[in-house]
Amino acid sequence: MTDEWSSSEKKIARRVFDAALHQELTEVLQTFKAMAERASDPEGMWSTEEFLSKSRWAIDSKYDYRYSQLDLVFGRLLREGRISEQDLSGLSESKMSVILRIAAF
Amino acid sequence: MTDEWSSSEKKIARRVFDAALHQELTEVLQTFKAMAERASDPEGMWSTEEFLSKSRWAIDSKYDYRYSQLDLVFGRLLREGRISEQDLSGLSESKMSVILRIAAF
Repeated sequence: MTDEWSSSEKKIARRVFDAALHQELTEVLQTFKAMAERASDPEGMWSTEEFLSKSRWAIDSKYDYRYSQLDLVFGRLLREGRISEQDLSGLSESKMSVILRIAAF
Repeated sequence: MTDEWSSSEKKIARRVFDAALHQELTEVLQTFKAMAERASDPEGMWSTEEFLSKSRWAIDSKYDYRYSQLDLVFGRLLREGRISEQDLSGLSESKMSVILRIAAF
């Protein structure tokens, strides 16, 4: 849990969050389309279904835009290399410190 | 519940069951591939996922190859037009009568 989010921090958060989500959805979409293209039997079809349902669950649980959760979200995205420290520039020192600790966890 | 299945009836049942299942899986596969081909954003992708998970559930619950369930299965397939009465030719009169009543239900 970090301190309150100022309005300029909220803007940064929204932009970084949306960009990371968009990027991840684009990757899942590409993989999905390639799997579907290759699928020529029920097995390939059900593998695609499993890939989609796991991806949906993972994305839904990862991208939680509540201010009480954003430090965890950004820490995780940083750890996964989906965002960089520079992307978060403008957040308070105390928030960055929490996010970096989560990223390193 | 119908009387016991003779070995010749079991052969007929297996053939009709497998052919109907194969046909239905082929239709789902075609629809899936067309949806995936058209999908160009997350919405189209998640619609495809929902279509697949509903289809999988429907197929799993419909194609139940237990002798105690086959009259229900064939009655339903007949009602849906997925099999014909001729396909079942060779089953006992009592089985056909149960299956036809279920089909007409």
